[in-house]
Amino acid sequence: MSPERTDTTVTRPHADSAFLRAARSEPVAHIPVWFMRQAGRSLPEYRKVRGEGTILDAIADVDRATEITLQPVRRYGVDAAILYSDIMTPAHAIGFGVDIQPGVGPVVERPFTSEADLERLRPLEADVDTPYVLETVRNLTAELDVPLIGFAGAPFTVASYLIEGRPTRTWVHTKALMHTDEPLWHRLMEALTDLAISSLRSQVDAGASAVQLFDSWVGALSPAEYDRFVAPSSSRVLAAMAELDVPRIHFGVHTGELLGRMAAAGAEVVGVDWRTPLDVARERVPTGTALQGNLDPALVAGGPTALEEAVADVIERGSDPRGGHIFNLGHGVLPETDPAVLERVVELVHAHPVREYPPASR
Amino acid sequence: MSPERTDTTVTRPHADSAFLRAARSEPVAHIPVWFMRQAGRSLPEYRKVRGEGTILDAIADVDRATEITLQPVRRYGVDAAILYSDIMTPAHAIGFGVDIQPGVGPVVERPFTSEADLERLRPLEADVDTPYVLETVRNLTAELDVPLIGFAGAPFTVASYLIEGRPTRTWVHTKALMHTDEPLWHRLMEALTDLAISSLRSQVDAGASAVQLFDSWVGALSPAEYDRFVAPSSSRVLAAMAELDVPRIHFGVHTGELLGRMAAAGAEVVGVDWRTPLDVARERVPTGTALQGNLDPALVAGGPTALEEAVADVIERGSDPRGGHIFNLGHGVLPETDPAVLERVVELVHAHPVREYPPASR
Repeated sequence: MSPERTDTTVTRPHADSAFLRAARSEPVAHIPVWFMRQAGRSLPEYRKVRGEGTILDAIADVDRATEITLQPVRRYGVDAAILYSDIMTPAHAIGFGVDIQPGVGPVVERPFTSEADLERLRPLEADVDTPYVLETVRNLTAELDVPLIGFAGAPFTVASYLIEGRPTRTWVHTKALMHTDEPLWHRLMEALTDLAISSLRSQVDAGASAVQLFDSWVGALSPAEYDRFVAPSSSRVLAAMAELDVPRIHFGVHTGELLGRMAAAGAEVVGVDWRTPLDVARERVPTGTALQGNLDPALVAGGPTALEEAVADVIERGSDPRGGHIFNLGHGVLPETDPAVLERVVELVHAHPVREYPPASR
Repeated sequence: MSPERTDTTVTRPHADSAFLRAARSEPVAHIPVWFMRQAGRSLPEYRKVRGEGTILDAIADVDRATEITLQPVRRYGVDAAILYSDIMTPAHAIGFGVDIQPGVGPVVERPFTSEADLERLRPLEADVDTPYVLETVRNLTAELDVPLIGFAGAPFTVASYLIEGRPTRTWVHTKALMHTDEPLWHRLMEALTDLAISSLRSQVDAGASAVQLFDSWVGALSPAEYDRFVAPSSSRVLAAMAELDVPRIHFGVHTGELLGRMAAAGAEVVGVDWRTPLDVARERVPTGTALQGNLDPALVAGGPTALEEAVADVIERGSDPRGGHIFNLGHGVLPETDPAVLERVVELVHAHPVREYPPASR
């Protein structure tokens, strides 16, 4: 690590927190932990303040979004907060016609089908289009004792929602478009790359200390498809973040065969679902890459013994001198999760001794 | 291969077919190909004879089930037929209360929740409980010029339907049961193991030349869960087939990290979804294991150029002196598939030159 980089890093808030140190694959005093979808339906305090309307309405209400983001930090004592928002927020904000239906997910009134639809994807002016997001980030940054993670949907995953029009199990229209009209596919990805960059940059400028690029569904592709149709765009998003000097987390599910590529796209941290043990994942990413994950979210219903064993197993497999480990679930918190179980997970992770390694060379 | 084994093998029908030779990892004159769900909604001739009622009704109608099984063999010239049936047929036949709802999938009226439900899982007497299946198999065996594949659902995948009560994305009840009541889990798996064995054995006795064990959803588990909660049962099913001297195919999706275990459970052939390239999969199974797969079923909508490239890529990666290759999709045919595209796939696979290897030592 160059002295310049170190200097910049320590001036950022919480630079010395366990979460940011682990993200940079530096030694930590305790293993940091947070949960994807830690803010949400599993929390009674969330259900109390969530109110009527869609999730997009709640996101646009600064006080509510701030409170919802803070709730799991208060309750669990997690090592990072993640902005209460949605990967479809930018596409919605520029007027593409996205709604998020309860029990369904993102629904697009007029799905992306042809070149004409590119016009509906104008650039995002974050301070005009999503001022509420930036105000929420500023509020949170002022209030939080832990780093705030900003995030965006990766171009592929957002494209798949715009094309399919609703959640899918086959991605057949998305794959049809990429293979039958590759130039149009790349133009769509370019537009969504710009959208992700504008959104992430504005969140970091407003105070976010790390970013996560959610390519949740990219595991639907083969490695060859990833290389040709996805990697150029995701790499451009991550490259644009490099100058901001915040750790970049890159996550998807079913990505066992893509982990090396997701690291190579330009991420300090790669998220891993529970299907790939972290020691196996470690072999697929370069030295110096931190891993995030990977307790099966369904295991919160598996009883205390299985939970303790599984938490210990994740930590053992994640502890490696070759790179950091941020404890998380392998995917988002399930709505039916008992919050007491996640409290216990945080307790177990924080109580777990940190393996000592020789200090990293400087 | 021992001379005894060879002797037995050649007396079975179609023993010298490309499909059975590839399944035994023997040299072939052309690469064999068939498609999971080749019989079904993508075919106009299927929609014509399918009739009203559920799929379980169509399966119980011997003439209809025979005709539906034959249709794709006639149209595509595939190298194997697969019985038109369902992995839930045995559980339905013993009266567990399973229905298959159009557009939904298997639905269980009273899901499996406790020890008392074990009584609802009596042994299958195939000739009494599913005589129609055996009659269909006998009809087909008499009529077909290619091997017939019999099949069963693996204990885990059938258990997951019985427990969840309907298709799930999280398998949270299934995982809760396995972790919170391991003895009950194993008793349930024992009962479903017996069910699969009875069903498969009856199909082979009636004339099926190969069996496929569908553990479609086992990729929802971590490797550690697979070892503890699944491998013993699936191994017992496959071991019971060993004496019948038919190739055993073992398949699931999202199983990239489980392929070696699925081979070790006792399979001559391991099915691979499109996420794991066949050359990568090859490194994870023992020498002498054939691979089946793995064209992305969504690629049939990707246009002729992408299709040709993808078919050639699958064949190149699948061709290896260490074991055979049976061309297939990485999962079932999608209902919206244009049959003309699958006709083209068969043409491409059959026209592809077979790489010559030194003859296998005997």
